[in-house]
Formats: sequence, structure tokens, C-alpha cells
Amino acid sequence: MTAPQYDDSNVFAKILRGELPAERLYEDEHTLAIMDIMPRGDGHCLVIPKAPARNILDVDPSSLAQVMETTQKLARAVIKAFSADGVTIQQFNESAGGQVVFHLHVHVIPRFDGVAMKPHTGTMEDADVLKANAGKIRAALD
Amino acid sequence: MTAPQYDDSNVFAKILRGELPAERLYEDEHTLAIMDIMPRGDGHCLVIPKAPARNILDVDPSSLAQVMETTQKLARAVIKAFSADGVTIQQFNESAGGQVVFHLHVHVIPRFDGVAMKPHTGTMEDADVLKANAGKIRAALD
Repeated sequence: MTAPQYDDSNVFAKILRGELPAERLYEDEHTLAIMDIMPRGDGHCLVIPKAPARNILDVDPSSLAQVMETTQKLARAVIKAFSADGVTIQQFNESAGGQVVFHLHVHVIPRFDGVAMKPHTGTMEDADVLKANAGKIRAALD
Repeated sequence: MTAPQYDDSNVFAKILRGELPAERLYEDEHTLAIMDIMPRGDGHCLVIPKAPARNILDVDPSSLAQVMETTQKLARAVIKAFSADGVTIQQFNESAGGQVVFHLHVHVIPRFDGVAMKPHTGTMEDADVLKANAGKIRAALD
């Protein structure tokens, strides 16, 4: 596999530049957490680095460490926010690996006993539902 | 959810103590990478911390950073070893989140264009296949 270059026209780069809106959950110097607009379950959110990186193959290890520290914060927050029974973390690399947006991102998906993950349908979640779930996660982060 | 405690009778703790065998791929002061014996695709491997941690909810952030640095090494190695087109990273927390062994572990799964991930069947892979794939990954890590 050739190593493709980072392209800053992706939607997460646009969100980081403020050119696209997002339900922002958490932000620090190095990372941003937002709601996934096509959630595979209630409270499905994403953590991205502010530094440009296509995926795990090219990311700076220190940037990856910062992303994972924020991922841990969000994992704990979604458990608390939704009284979840567990959390599934996914991170996809290149199209064959499941990646759709080519800026490194980590999926944080609250899980519940006996509830399967919803398939990736490509359908956008209702904005009011996203807003309500984002509010719960922000409250749990405080 | 209550926060369950780490129980060192799990199979990864036994592998770390040398009480159970494993196809070891990479080891440093803080982490160990081994083959998954029930792979969801050829070359499916796992990265674990040496420090005890149940999952992402209780792991020390510095230990998680070390695990992810090794995960990146393995992601690059499996791409090279199998000429993979991508890689899927998964990390499961608590039973509802997909966790079966309660020592933190990160799945590194090489992916190929047009090839779906195999379902988790619970069937052990043939030891010779695991050994051959482990050899390819070790060679790619050099």
C-alpha cells in the first residue's frame, strides 16, 4: 500500500477550522470531541486530533496519545451520561479498514446489555436528538 | 455501572506471567503484542499493556499511550506483512462493549479491499497458520 497524503478538505478539518458546524463535546489544546452525525447508537461520539493526520499509519505518537487520553474521558462520560453497560472503541484506517473521513478519528460508542450496534446506514440523526445527547455527555464531563 | 476490579486470573495476565503460551510478536518494557488465537482475519493481533488494567475505563493514561504506540507499530507491520489495504482497530470495554478477556487489549486487524471481516466464531485458528502469520509480522517489524 502506498502512503497517501493528508488532504485538508475533509469534513473534520473543516469542523476544526470552524467552516462546518458540529455538536462539540470537549476541546483541549490538542484534541476535539464531537457527536457522530450518523450514530451507530445513542451517544456515539468521535475524538479527533487538532494536528493533521490521515489515520493511525501517519499520526505522530504524541498526538495519538493525546487523542486516546481524550477518548478515555469520553468513554467514562458516555457510561455516566447514558448509564451504559460498556463502550466500544473503533478506529478505521483506509477505505478497506472502514475509514470514510480521512482525518484520524476514534469512535466512542456506548453499549447496553442485549442491544446490538446499529449498522452504519449513512442516515443522519435528527439534530434535536444529537443536541439532547450532546448535552448529557457535556454534563457528564463536568 | 459499577467499576469492577482487575482480576489477574485472566488469560492475558497468564500469558504475561509465562503461564500460558502465545505467539509473541513484539515486546518492550510496557507492552506485549501477540496473535489473536480466534482471528477475524489473517494477521489479526492484539496489543496489551504489562501493567494491570481491566479496560479503557481504569487504565493509566500513560499505559494507554504506550499501548497505542505499539498498536501503531503493529498496524504498520501488518500492512507490510500482508500487503493489506487498510487496518481496523477495535477495543472493547465490559461485556456489553464486546469484551471477553478482562485485561485491556487492542485488536489490530489487517483489511483487504472487498473482504468483509469474519464474524467472531469462537473457533481457534490452526496453530501452524498462526505461526506462519506471526513470522510474517515479526519480519515486517524488523
